[in-house]
Amino acid sequence: MTQARTEHSSPEPPVKGLVQVFTGDGKGKTTAALGAVMRALGQGRRVFIVFFMKGDYPYGERRILAQLPNVALVSFGSLDFVDPAGARPQDKEQARQALAAAREAVLGGSYDLAVLDEINVAVAFGLIPLEEVLKLIKDKPPGLELILTGRKAHPELVKVADLVTECLKIKHPYDKGIGARRGIEY
Amino acid sequence: MTQARTEHSSPEPPVKGLVQVFTGDGKGKTTAALGAVMRALGQGRRVFIVFFMKGDYPYGERRILAQLPNVALVSFGSLDFVDPAGARPQDKEQARQALAAAREAVLGGSYDLAVLDEINVAVAFGLIPLEEVLKLIKDKPPGLELILTGRKAHPELVKVADLVTECLKIKHPYDKGIGARRGIEY
Repeated sequence: MTQARTEHSSPEPPVKGLVQVFTGDGKGKTTAALGAVMRALGQGRRVFIVFFMKGDYPYGERRILAQLPNVALVSFGSLDFVDPAGARPQDKEQARQALAAAREAVLGGSYDLAVLDEINVAVAFGLIPLEEVLKLIKDKPPGLELILTGRKAHPELVKVADLVTECLKIKHPYDKGIGARRGIEY
Repeated sequence: MTQARTEHSSPEPPVKGLVQVFTGDGKGKTTAALGAVMRALGQGRRVFIVFFMKGDYPYGERRILAQLPNVALVSFGSLDFVDPAGARPQDKEQARQALAAAREAVLGGSYDLAVLDEINVAVAFGLIPLEEVLKLIKDKPPGLELILTGRKAHPELVKVADLVTECLKIKHPYDKGIGARRGIEY
Protein backbone atom coordinates (compact mmCIF):
# COMPACT_ATOMS: atom_id res chain seq x y z
CA MET A 1 0.00 0.00 0.00
CA THR A 2 1.57 3.25 -0.99
CA GLN A 3 0.16 6.59 -0.12
CA ALA A 4 1.11 10.19 0.19
CA ARG A 5 2.87 11.05 3.37
CA THR A 6 3.40 14.71 2.95
CA GLU A 7 0.05 16.27 3.47
CA HIS A 8 -0.56 15.72 7.17
CA SER A 9 0.46 19.04 8.52
CA SER A 10 -0.48 21.06 5.49
CA PRO A 11 -3.94 22.62 5.28
CA GLU A 12 -6.58 20.14 4.21
CA PRO A 13 -7.11 20.09 0.51
CA PRO A 14 -10.74 20.00 -0.49
CA VAL A 15 -11.79 16.40 -0.78
CA LYS A 16 -13.84 15.52 -3.80
CA GLY A 17 -16.77 13.48 -2.63
CA LEU A 18 -17.40 10.38 -4.64
CA VAL A 19 -20.27 7.94 -4.83
CA GLN A 20 -19.47 4.47 -3.52
CA VAL A 21 -21.65 1.41 -3.93
CA PHE A 22 -21.26 -1.81 -1.94
CA THR A 23 -23.41 -4.56 -3.33
CA GLY A 24 -23.44 -8.35 -3.79
CA ASP A 25 -24.66 -11.25 -1.71
CA GLY A 26 -21.58 -11.55 0.50
CA LYS A 27 -21.00 -10.26 3.99
CA GLY A 28 -19.28 -6.92 4.38
CA LYS A 29 -21.43 -4.29 2.73
CA THR A 30 -22.81 -2.54 5.81
CA THR A 31 -19.69 -3.30 7.79
CA ALA A 32 -17.53 -1.72 5.09
CA ALA A 33 -19.69 1.39 5.32
CA LEU A 34 -19.32 1.38 9.09
CA GLY A 35 -15.56 1.11 8.76
CA ALA A 36 -15.60 4.06 6.39
CA VAL A 37 -17.61 5.96 8.99
CA MET A 38 -15.04 5.20 11.66
CA ARG A 39 -12.26 6.35 9.36
CA ALA A 40 -14.05 9.57 8.44
CA LEU A 41 -14.84 10.38 12.06
CA GLY A 42 -11.20 9.84 12.92
CA GLN A 43 -10.30 12.55 10.43
CA GLY A 44 -12.80 14.96 11.95
CA ARG A 45 -15.42 14.60 9.25
CA ARG A 46 -19.14 14.80 9.94
CA VAL A 47 -21.19 11.75 9.14
CA PHE A 48 -24.85 11.02 8.54
CA ILE A 49 -26.18 7.46 8.41
CA VAL A 50 -29.67 6.39 7.44
CA PHE A 51 -30.69 2.75 7.77
CA PHE A 52 -33.41 2.11 5.22
CA MET A 53 -34.64 -1.30 6.20
CA LYS A 54 -33.29 -2.22 9.59
CA GLY A 55 -35.95 -0.84 11.91
CA ASP A 56 -35.03 -0.69 15.56
CA TYR A 57 -32.88 -3.76 15.59
CA PRO A 58 -30.24 -3.62 18.33
CA TYR A 59 -27.19 -3.59 16.11
CA GLY A 60 -24.09 -3.25 18.26
CA GLU A 61 -22.66 -0.47 16.15
CA ARG A 62 -25.39 1.94 17.19
CA ARG A 63 -24.19 1.88 20.75
CA ILE A 64 -20.68 2.83 19.64
CA LEU A 65 -21.86 5.48 17.21
CA ALA A 66 -23.92 7.04 19.98
CA GLN A 67 -20.70 7.58 21.94
CA LEU A 68 -18.92 9.36 19.13
CA PRO A 69 -19.15 13.01 18.16
CA ASN A 70 -20.00 14.26 14.66
CA VAL A 71 -22.26 11.41 13.68
CA ALA A 72 -26.04 11.43 13.26
CA LEU A 73 -28.03 8.27 12.70
CA VAL A 74 -31.64 7.68 11.76
CA SER A 75 -33.36 4.39 11.16
CA PHE A 76 -36.47 3.33 9.29
CA GLY A 77 -38.13 0.24 7.97
CA SER A 78 -39.11 -3.03 9.35
CA LEU A 79 -37.36 -6.16 10.44
CA ASP A 80 -40.15 -8.13 8.89
CA PHE A 81 -39.38 -9.58 5.56
CA VAL A 82 -40.44 -7.31 2.76
CA ASP A 83 -41.98 -9.37 -0.01
CA PRO A 84 -40.45 -7.96 -3.20
CA ALA A 85 -43.47 -9.14 -5.12
CA GLY A 86 -45.81 -7.07 -3.04
CA ALA A 87 -44.42 -4.43 -0.71
CA ARG A 88 -46.86 -3.30 1.95
CA PRO A 89 -47.89 0.35 2.19
CA GLN A 90 -46.02 0.69 5.48
CA ASP A 91 -42.81 -0.57 3.90
CA LYS A 92 -43.07 2.02 1.17
CA GLU A 93 -43.92 4.75 3.64
CA GLN A 94 -40.91 3.92 5.81
CA ALA A 95 -38.59 3.87 2.80
CA ARG A 96 -40.05 7.16 1.59
CA GLN A 97 -39.34 8.73 4.96
CA ALA A 98 -35.81 7.33 4.94
CA LEU A 99 -35.20 8.83 1.51
CA ALA A 100 -36.59 12.19 2.63
CA ALA A 101 -34.25 12.14 5.64
CA ALA A 102 -31.35 11.25 3.36
CA ARG A 103 -32.19 14.05 0.98
CA GLU A 104 -32.43 16.62 3.76
CA ALA A 105 -29.09 15.54 5.20
CA VAL A 106 -27.33 15.36 1.84
CA LEU A 107 -28.55 18.73 0.63
CA GLY A 108 -28.25 20.43 4.01
CA GLY A 109 -24.50 20.81 3.73
CA SER A 110 -23.75 19.78 7.31
CA TYR A 111 -22.12 16.47 6.50
CA ASP A 112 -19.03 15.23 4.73
CA LEU A 113 -20.11 11.60 4.42
CA ALA A 114 -23.59 10.14 4.11
CA VAL A 115 -24.27 6.41 4.31
CA LEU A 116 -27.52 5.19 2.79
CA ASP A 117 -27.66 1.69 4.20
CA GLU A 118 -29.70 -0.89 2.25
CA ILE A 119 -30.95 1.73 -0.17
CA ASN A 120 -30.10 -0.62 -3.04
CA VAL A 121 -32.58 -3.15 -1.68
CA ALA A 122 -35.21 -0.49 -1.18
CA VAL A 123 -34.91 0.34 -4.88
CA ALA A 124 -34.80 -3.30 -5.95
CA PHE A 125 -37.98 -4.04 -4.00
CA GLY A 126 -39.78 -1.07 -5.49
CA LEU A 127 -40.08 0.76 -2.18
CA ILE A 128 -38.59 3.94 -3.61
CA PRO A 129 -38.18 5.05 -7.22
CA LEU A 130 -34.76 4.68 -8.79
CA GLU A 131 -35.16 8.14 -10.32
CA GLU A 132 -35.29 9.79 -6.91
CA VAL A 133 -32.07 8.13 -5.85
CA LEU A 134 -30.38 9.17 -9.09
CA LYS A 135 -31.61 12.71 -8.51
CA LEU A 136 -30.24 12.68 -4.97
CA ILE A 137 -26.84 11.63 -6.31
CA LYS A 138 -26.99 14.32 -8.98
CA ASP A 139 -27.95 17.02 -6.48
CA LYS A 140 -25.40 16.21 -3.80
CA PRO A 141 -22.82 18.84 -2.88
CA PRO A 142 -19.49 18.17 -4.65
CA GLY A 143 -17.60 17.64 -1.41
CA LEU A 144 -19.98 15.10 0.06
CA GLU A 145 -19.07 11.43 -0.09
CA LEU A 146 -22.02 9.11 -0.55
CA ILE A 147 -22.04 5.40 0.27
CA LEU A 148 -24.92 3.23 -0.91
CA THR A 149 -25.15 -0.33 0.38
CA GLY A 150 -27.29 -3.38 -0.22
CA ARG A 151 -27.69 -6.30 -2.56
CA LYS A 152 -29.05 -5.97 -6.03
CA ALA A 153 -27.70 -2.51 -6.79
CA HIS A 154 -29.49 -1.22 -9.86
CA PRO A 155 -27.27 -1.03 -12.98
CA GLU A 156 -28.03 2.69 -13.22
CA LEU A 157 -26.63 3.22 -9.72
CA VAL A 158 -23.53 1.23 -10.63
CA LYS A 159 -23.20 3.37 -13.73
CA VAL A 160 -23.23 6.71 -11.93
CA ALA A 161 -21.06 5.53 -9.02
CA ASP A 162 -17.35 6.26 -8.91
CA LEU A 163 -16.43 3.22 -6.86
CA VAL A 164 -18.31 -0.06 -6.87
CA THR A 165 -17.43 -3.13 -4.89
CA GLU A 166 -19.31 -6.36 -5.21
CA CYS A 167 -19.04 -8.44 -2.05
CA LEU A 168 -19.14 -11.99 -3.37
CA LYS A 169 -20.17 -14.74 -1.06
CA ILE A 170 -17.55 -17.45 -1.39
CA LYS A 171 -18.57 -19.13 1.86
CA HIS A 172 -21.11 -18.12 4.47
CA PRO A 173 -21.89 -19.79 7.79
CA TYR A 174 -25.63 -19.26 7.21
CA ASP A 175 -25.23 -21.94 4.56
CA LYS A 176 -24.16 -24.31 7.29
CA GLY A 177 -27.18 -23.40 9.39
CA ILE A 178 -25.33 -21.06 11.74
CA GLY A 179 -27.60 -18.14 12.48
CA ALA A 180 -26.79 -14.50 13.07
CA ARG A 181 -24.67 -14.07 16.16
CA ARG A 182 -24.88 -11.14 18.56
CA GLY A 183 -21.77 -8.96 18.47
CA ILE A 184 -20.75 -10.39 15.14
CA GLU A 185 -23.57 -10.05 12.64
CA TYR A 186 -25.45 -7.39 14.66
CA MET B 1 -32.33 6.32 17.87
CA THR B 2 -33.92 3.11 18.87
CA GLN B 3 -32.24 0.12 20.30
CA ALA B 4 -32.77 -3.30 21.63
CA ARG B 5 -35.84 -4.49 23.10
CA THR B 6 -35.50 -7.70 24.99
CA GLU B 7 -32.16 -9.29 25.13
CA HIS B 8 -30.01 -6.89 27.10
CA SER B 9 -30.83 -8.21 30.50
CA SER B 10 -30.81 -11.88 29.60
CA PRO B 11 -27.56 -13.84 30.04
CA GLU B 12 -25.42 -13.91 26.93
CA PRO B 13 -25.43 -17.17 25.07
CA PRO B 14 -21.95 -18.43 24.20
CA VAL B 15 -20.98 -17.25 20.76
CA LYS B 16 -19.10 -19.68 18.57
CA GLY B 17 -16.16 -17.86 17.08
CA LEU B 18 -15.70 -18.37 13.38
CA VAL B 19 -12.92 -17.57 10.96
CA GLN B 20 -13.75 -14.86 8.45
CA VAL B 21 -11.69 -13.96 5.41
CA PHE B 22 -12.07 -10.78 3.38
CA THR B 23 -10.09 -10.89 0.19
CA GLY B 24 -10.23 -9.68 -3.42
CA ASP B 25 -8.99 -6.58 -5.19
CA GLY B 26 -11.98 -4.39 -4.35
CA LYS B 27 -12.32 -1.77 -1.66
CA GLY B 28 -13.91 -2.80 1.60
CA LYS B 29 -11.76 -5.48 3.17
CA THR B 30 -10.16 -3.53 5.99
CA THR B 31 -13.22 -1.31 6.32
CA ALA B 32 -15.45 -4.36 6.69
CA ALA B 33 -13.19 -5.59 9.47
CA LEU B 34 -13.37 -2.17 11.11
CA GLY B 35 -17.15 -2.22 10.91
CA ALA B 36 -17.14 -5.65 12.55
CA VAL B 37 -14.94 -4.18 15.28
CA MET B 38 -17.41 -1.37 15.87
CA ARG B 39 -20.26 -3.84 16.06
CA ALA B 40 -18.42 -6.14 18.47
CA LEU B 41 -17.42 -3.25 20.72
CA GLY B 42 -21.03 -2.14 20.77
CA GLN B 43 -21.98 -5.50 22.20
CA GLY B 44 -19.34 -5.25 24.89
CA ARG B 45 -16.87 -7.61 23.28
CA ARG B 46 -13.09 -7.21 23.57
CA VAL B 47 -11.18 -6.68 20.39
CA PHE B 48 -7.57 -7.02 19.28
CA ILE B 49 -6.35 -5.65 15.97
CA VAL B 50 -2.98 -6.16 14.38
CA PHE B 51 -2.05 -4.31 11.22
CA PHE B 52 0.52 -6.41 9.39
CA MET B 53 1.69 -4.05 6.71
CA LYS B 54 0.50 -0.56 7.45
CA GLY B 55 3.28 0.91 9.54
CA ASP B 56 2.47 4.01 11.50
CA TYR B 57 0.35 5.69 8.91
CA PRO B 58 -2.23 7.98 10.51
CA TYR B 59 -5.33 6.16 9.38
CA GLY B 60 -8.36 7.96 10.72
CA GLU B 61 -9.77 4.89 12.35
CA ARG B 62 -6.92 4.69 14.83
CA ARG B 63 -7.93 7.97 16.36
CA ILE B 64 -11.44 6.66 16.91
CA LEU B 65 -10.31 3.29 18.18
CA ALA B 66 -8.06 5.02 20.68
CA GLN B 67 -11.14 6.68 22.18
CA LEU B 68 -13.01 3.43 22.66
CA PRO B 69 -12.72 0.95 25.51
CA ASN B 70 -12.01 -2.77 25.08
CA VAL B 71 -9.90 -2.48 21.99
CA ALA B 72 -6.15 -3.00 21.62
CA LEU B 73 -4.28 -2.20 18.45
CA VAL B 74 -0.75 -2.92 17.32
CA SER B 75 0.84 -2.08 14.02
CA PHE B 76 3.81 -3.37 12.10
CA GLY B 77 5.31 -3.26 8.67
CA SER B 78 6.29 -0.63 6.28
CA LEU B 79 4.53 1.83 4.10
CA ASP B 80 7.14 1.20 1.48
CA PHE B 81 6.17 -1.15 -1.25
CA VAL B 82 7.14 -4.69 -0.48
CA ASP B 83 8.46 -6.35 -3.60
CA PRO B 84 6.81 -9.76 -3.69
CA ALA B 85 9.69 -11.07 -5.74
CA GLY B 86 12.18 -10.21 -3.06
CA ALA B 87 11.03 -9.24 0.39
CA ARG B 88 13.62 -7.43 2.44
CA PRO B 89 14.79 -8.83 5.78
CA GLN B 90 13.10 -5.96 7.61
CA ASP B 91 9.76 -6.72 5.94
CA LYS B 92 9.97 -10.32 7.08
CA GLU B 93 11.04 -9.32 10.56
CA GLN B 94 8.11 -6.89 10.91
CA ALA B 95 5.64 -9.50 9.69
CA ARG B 96 7.13 -12.07 12.04
CA GLN B 97 6.65 -9.68 14.95
CA ALA B 98 3.08 -9.00 13.86
CA LEU B 99 2.35 -12.71 13.76
CA ALA B 100 3.89 -13.20 17.20
CA ALA B 101 1.70 -10.41 18.58
CA ALA B 102 -1.33 -11.98 16.93
CA ARG B 103 -0.52 -15.37 18.38
CA GLU B 104 -0.06 -14.00 21.88
CA ALA B 105 -3.37 -12.12 21.70
CA VAL B 106 -5.30 -15.00 20.16
CA LEU B 107 -4.05 -17.60 22.62
CA GLY B 108 -4.12 -15.29 25.62
CA GLY B 109 -7.86 -15.57 26.04
CA SER B 110 -8.48 -11.89 26.71
CA TYR B 111 -10.23 -11.14 23.44
CA ASP B 112 -13.46 -12.10 21.70
CA LEU B 113 -12.49 -10.83 18.26
CA ALA B 114 -9.08 -10.58 16.64
CA VAL B 115 -8.51 -8.81 13.33
CA LEU B 116 -5.36 -9.75 11.41
CA ASP B 117 -5.28 -6.97 8.86
CA GLU B 118 -3.40 -7.65 5.60
CA ILE B 119 -2.20 -11.01 6.86
CA ASN B 120 -3.27 -12.56 3.55
CA VAL B 121 -0.82 -10.31 1.73
CA ALA B 122 1.93 -11.09 4.22
CA VAL B 123 1.47 -14.77 3.37
CA ALA B 124 1.20 -14.16 -0.36
CA PHE B 125 4.42 -12.17 -0.35
CA GLY B 126 6.25 -14.86 1.57
CA LEU B 127 6.78 -12.69 4.64
CA ILE B 128 5.32 -15.32 6.98
CA PRO B 129 4.76 -19.04 6.43
CA LEU B 130 1.27 -20.19 5.59
CA GLU B 131 1.68 -23.06 8.02
CA GLU B 132 2.03 -20.73 10.98
CA VAL B 133 -1.18 -18.94 10.10
CA LEU B 134 -2.99 -22.25 9.73
CA LYS B 135 -1.62 -23.30 13.12
CA LEU B 136 -2.83 -20.07 14.69
CA ILE B 137 -6.32 -20.71 13.33
CA LYS B 138 -6.21 -24.29 14.59
CA ASP B 139 -5.05 -23.23 18.06
CA LYS B 140 -7.49 -20.37 18.59
CA PRO B 141 -9.94 -20.61 21.48
CA PRO B 142 -13.37 -21.83 20.29
CA GLY B 143 -15.12 -18.61 21.32
CA LEU B 144 -12.75 -16.25 19.54
CA GLU B 145 -13.76 -14.77 16.21
CA LEU B 146 -10.91 -14.28 13.78
CA ILE B 147 -10.96 -11.94 10.78
CA LEU B 148 -8.21 -12.15 8.17
CA THR B 149 -8.03 -9.46 5.53
CA GLY B 150 -6.03 -8.74 2.42
CA ARG B 151 -5.83 -9.59 -1.26
CA LYS B 152 -4.64 -12.91 -2.52
CA ALA B 153 -5.91 -15.04 0.34
CA HIS B 154 -4.23 -18.43 0.09
CA PRO B 155 -6.58 -21.24 -0.98
CA GLU B 156 -5.75 -23.11 2.23
CA LEU B 157 -6.95 -20.13 4.28
CA VAL B 158 -10.15 -19.98 2.25
CA LYS B 159 -10.57 -23.69 2.85
CA VAL B 160 -10.36 -23.53 6.64
CA ALA B 161 -12.41 -20.34 6.96
CA ASP B 162 -16.10 -20.42 7.85
CA LEU B 163 -16.97 -17.23 6.03
CA VAL B 164 -15.20 -15.87 2.99
CA THR B 165 -16.08 -12.73 1.11
CA GLU B 166 -14.33 -11.68 -2.04
CA CYS B 167 -14.51 -7.94 -2.53
CA LEU B 168 -14.59 -7.58 -6.28
CA LYS B 169 -13.53 -4.34 -7.84
CA ILE B 170 -16.25 -3.37 -10.28
CA LYS B 171 -15.12 0.24 -10.45
CA HIS B 172 -12.43 2.06 -8.55
CA PRO B 173 -11.57 5.78 -8.65
CA TYR B 174 -7.84 4.95 -8.63
CA ASP B 175 -8.46 3.74 -12.18
CA LYS B 176 -9.48 7.27 -13.05
CA GLY B 177 -6.34 8.70 -11.49
CA ILE B 178 -7.99 9.85 -8.28
CA GLY B 179 -5.58 9.15 -5.44
CA ALA B 180 -6.21 8.12 -1.87
CA ARG B 181 -8.19 10.77 -0.03
CA ARG B 182 -7.76 11.60 3.64
CA GLY B 183 -10.80 10.70 5.73
CA ILE B 184 -12.02 8.36 3.03
CA GLU B 185 -9.35 5.87 2.11
CA TYR B 186 -7.28 6.44 5.28
